[in-house]
Formats: sequence, structure tokens, C-alpha cells
Amino acid sequence: MRVLFAAPTRLWDEWAPALQAACPEIELCRDGAPESFDALIYAPGYPEDGSTLDFSPFVNARLVQSLWAGVERIVTNETLTQPLCRMVDPGLAIGMTEYCLGWAMRAHLGMDSQLQDGVWRNELVPPLASERGITVLGMGELGRSVAGTLARLGFRVTGWSQSGRPVEGIEVLPGDRLGDALSRAEILICLLPDTAETRGLMNARTLSLLPEGATLINAGRGTLIDEGALIEALEAGRPGHAVLDVFQIEPLPADHPFWSHARVTVTSHIAADTRPTTAATVAAENLRRAMRDEPLLHRVDRARGY
Amino acid sequence: MRVLFAAPTRLWDEWAPALQAACPEIELCRDGAPESFDALIYAPGYPEDGSTLDFSPFVNARLVQSLWAGVERIVTNETLTQPLCRMVDPGLAIGMTEYCLGWAMRAHLGMDSQLQDGVWRNELVPPLASERGITVLGMGELGRSVAGTLARLGFRVTGWSQSGRPVEGIEVLPGDRLGDALSRAEILICLLPDTAETRGLMNARTLSLLPEGATLINAGRGTLIDEGALIEALEAGRPGHAVLDVFQIEPLPADHPFWSHARVTVTSHIAADTRPTTAATVAAENLRRAMRDEPLLHRVDRARGY
Repeated sequence: MRVLFAAPTRLWDEWAPALQAACPEIELCRDGAPESFDALIYAPGYPEDGSTLDFSPFVNARLVQSLWAGVERIVTNETLTQPLCRMVDPGLAIGMTEYCLGWAMRAHLGMDSQLQDGVWRNELVPPLASERGITVLGMGELGRSVAGTLARLGFRVTGWSQSGRPVEGIEVLPGDRLGDALSRAEILICLLPDTAETRGLMNARTLSLLPEGATLINAGRGTLIDEGALIEALEAGRPGHAVLDVFQIEPLPADHPFWSHARVTVTSHIAADTRPTTAATVAAENLRRAMRDEPLLHRVDRARGY
Repeated sequence: MRVLFAAPTRLWDEWAPALQAACPEIELCRDGAPESFDALIYAPGYPEDGSTLDFSPFVNARLVQSLWAGVERIVTNETLTQPLCRMVDPGLAIGMTEYCLGWAMRAHLGMDSQLQDGVWRNELVPPLASERGITVLGMGELGRSVAGTLARLGFRVTGWSQSGRPVEGIEVLPGDRLGDALSRAEILICLLPDTAETRGLMNARTLSLLPEGATLINAGRGTLIDEGALIEALEAGRPGHAVLDVFQIEPLPADHPFWSHARVTVTSHIAADTRPTTAATVAAENLRRAMRDEPLLHRVDRARGY
């Protein structure tokens, strides 16, 4: 089975070994005659000369497997008539859970309160997880995974979602109890999608409902937070610190005040990245299914666009 | 039941509410006639004038409950003839586990590689826990708790102990396979006691067996590490970073090179502290037992000294 790696060159070193390991029977190529390929692995940015890829010469391709979850940049390409599948990477939820756990632990342990200044501060003993309130906004797949992991470690976890639909082992408050959810949030983890209801949900009024010195972690969508209001709220200590992985504008501009703010930690939209190791197993499964004419996983409905 | 809080004043604010909450029936006092007390809660540093406490006037005391696990400073006091109990705080193992988890997650996520310098580095995606090797030296109560928690989060955990005695869910290597254990340690967590065998176990030779860039976390005993050898080893990148909670000399002297070393993070022997909330429940149980003439928990055998 010949497969074209139709993705930017910079991705080759990381992805090719993972794809070959997950699917040893394929011949993964960086170029070749279009009609010789049985399938394409695709990521935006290919071809690298900036032109739009013409899928029509790939007359024998039975599958175009996207490396990313989002396919909005390819689904409108009218030359693409082959079956298109988006990536649903099990590693993404795992990575997101690890990100949120790690930053929550850093806040929980007060890691940054022991300055490296020669002063022995052995009074800085943090409370136990069982004495620490964490609120997770958003009870989708990611929110449930993060909340469940934290609860199993002993934290006092409150969930919040518009519906308030129950989640086993977690108290979930419904939409109209956002204030209660925020008031319990010594650590607030935001994992909400970008919708009309969530845009600007964290603003001057809602931020003021946090406990003093709370840590806000946003790994969902940048549109959730009124960034100007957050900077003012940090001055007032509610929250006392913000760890932000997503922003209104990405990449975050180099002159944005978040970068140099002592109470803000910026990460570069890394919390929920696709991981080659886990994603390659999904791609491999689809390549095998394509060769056997079996139903493909995560096939995009071109009419609906996802 | 009248109980004397025979501990330094600075401990009162934290401990008194916890003790009262755990045992509402006691009258907790800071002073009074010795013969009026049914029990003492004791911590070194009392009396605060520096004198040695004379326990002989406490003729009605049925229990001297130490706040700390160690009783070596009191067990030799010849006036102490009342039953003495040391503290076995369930919060200690929990707190130790949280400490090790938090610092391991910080290393795992590479939190310190995203500098706050305005440069968007979204290529800094860490591997998943399932791709990360962590070795735990010491498979006592603390080591087993830490190793088990990390394994349940998906990390590839190797344990090491002199005996190599099996632990469910963890591969435990025996004494003569220390080299193998260290070679797997992208993150090394040291939870060994201070014994003739462990003193200086981490030295120039053994440190050189770590993977390049490994993170060493020592939360056991300071005597484990040859500190001079560690500073040289950090220059060579094995380990790449050290998080140290315990030291050859404590408090760590203000002019010790660890404080200002870019690759060393010092914490002030806080990983395994006694926690008032959990410890108070143990003290309360013993106070109740003392009043009912029931067998006391964790009673010290004065002949053996522990």
C-alpha cells in the first residue's frame, strides 16, 4: 500500500516513524506519481509552495486521512472527492488531562512560594488535596476526564455545565449556579467550547466571584475570557494567578501584556495537541480499513462540513 | 477532659482549631495547674523558656500525645512516666504523594521550557505519561504510595528496593539492578530511609547512569546524595535538574550553592510534614481511648525508644 505524506516537511521527522510503526505494511512516500497512491495522509500547509492541493489526479486514493481534528481548511476544496476522515486522537484528552493536572498541582502545592533566595521556609506546608476546592467549567469529554482524575486524587471537585447533567463521582452545578461554582474554585479549570454562551463568560463580574488568590487555568478556548478584565482582576487578587494556554488572538502577540505579567503564565496552545504515537494508531486503522473496503472511522460528511 | 497544649505558641493557631474540631469534648488549655490535666499534647520547644519540661507534676495525665512522628527529644526525659504516644499521621503519606506527583508533573510537562519571553513555542508538546519512564527508589509505605499513584496516571513506573519484593502493579527491581532502574529514570524519585546502605548511594558513579536531562527528586533523606557529586553531575546534564526537599545539613545554609543553582530547586523539608487536620483525628482517637482506659495507638516502648 503506497501512502503519500501530504503534509509540511517539518512534520515528517515526528510523524513518519510513528505511522510506520503503527502500520508497517505501508510504503510512506514524500512524493511520487499521484495515480500510484492508495491513500494520502494530509495536513494543511501542503503543498509547501502555498498553492491549493489538487486532489483530482489521485484517482486510486481510497482515503484522505487528516492529521488534525479540524478539517475546515480542506473540506471546501472541490477537487477532493475521495473519502475524507478527520483525526480523533485518544491522546488529546489524555494530554489535556495531564496538562490540567500538572498546573493544578503546581498551584495546589504553592510551588512558586518557596523562593530560591536562601531563606528556609518550612512553614509553607500546603493543605492536602482533600482540603482543596477545584472547579471545572465544562463537563464535556475533556472536562469529565480532568474532573474525574482530580477527584480520584482526593481533590474536592465541583463541575459546572449549562445542563448540570450528572457525572458519576462529581457534583455538577447547572448554568444558573455559576456563582456557587466559582466561589468554591481555589483552582478554576476552564474547559469550555467557543459558543455564543461562553464568549466573555469570564469577565469583571464573574472573576470577582473567585476566592482571593485563586488560580485560573484556561485550556479551553481563548474567547471565554475578557482579557482586559482579567488583567484588572489580577491586580485585585481574584484570581491571584492565571495559567493560559489559549487566547483571543493566537499566536499571542509578542507585545501582549500577558507575557510579562508576573501573575500570568503563558503556554502556547499545547494542552490539547494531537500526539503522533496515539494518532498514528488511528490513522493506521483507517488505512487498513480503506484497503479492505471496510467502513472508515471519523469520516467527514462533506455536506455538514465535519 | 482537660488537655494541656504543651507545644510552642506558634503552633496554637493552626492546631487548636483542628484538635477542637476532631475532639469537641476536650477543654484544650494553654496553661493551668498540672494536676488538673487528664492529658498533654506535646511538641518540642515547650516550655518556651528553653527549660526541660518536668512531667512529674502531671499526676493525673493518662496520655502524652506527641504531635510529631519523632520522639527522640522526649523519650529520654526521665520525668516522663505517663504513657507516651507518637504521631502516625495518615496525611503524611498523602502529602508526600502529592508533593512527588506535583514535581514529577512539572518535569513531565516541561513547564519551565516555555519561557515568558514573548516567543510562541507551540512545538513544545510533551510526550504522554505512557511514554515517560519514572523510577522510584524505595518501596516502603511512601514509595509504594507514590509509585502506585503515578502508575494509575499512566506513567511507566519502575520501583527499586534492596529486596526487590513485589508490589502489585509495579515492576520492582532488586538491589543489584540499581543501574537498570536508574537508566529508565527520565524522572527519578528518591524515597529511601537513612541507613548504612543508602548513605551516599547517589554519587558520581550512580548519577552518571541517569538518562541525559533526567529530573531527580529527593524527598526521602538528605544523606542519600553526595551533594558535591550532584553539583558536578548537573554540569554534565545527568541529571538535568534536581528538586531537593532534604539535605545533608538542615536548614540548608543560606550560602549553600544549591540555592542559587539554576538547575536546582530547593524546598524546605515540607514534603512529609504532619498535617493538623489528619493528625488531630489520630490525637482525638487517643484522647478518647485514654479516658476509657483502652489500649493507646502508637504507644512508645520506652526501652526501645520508638
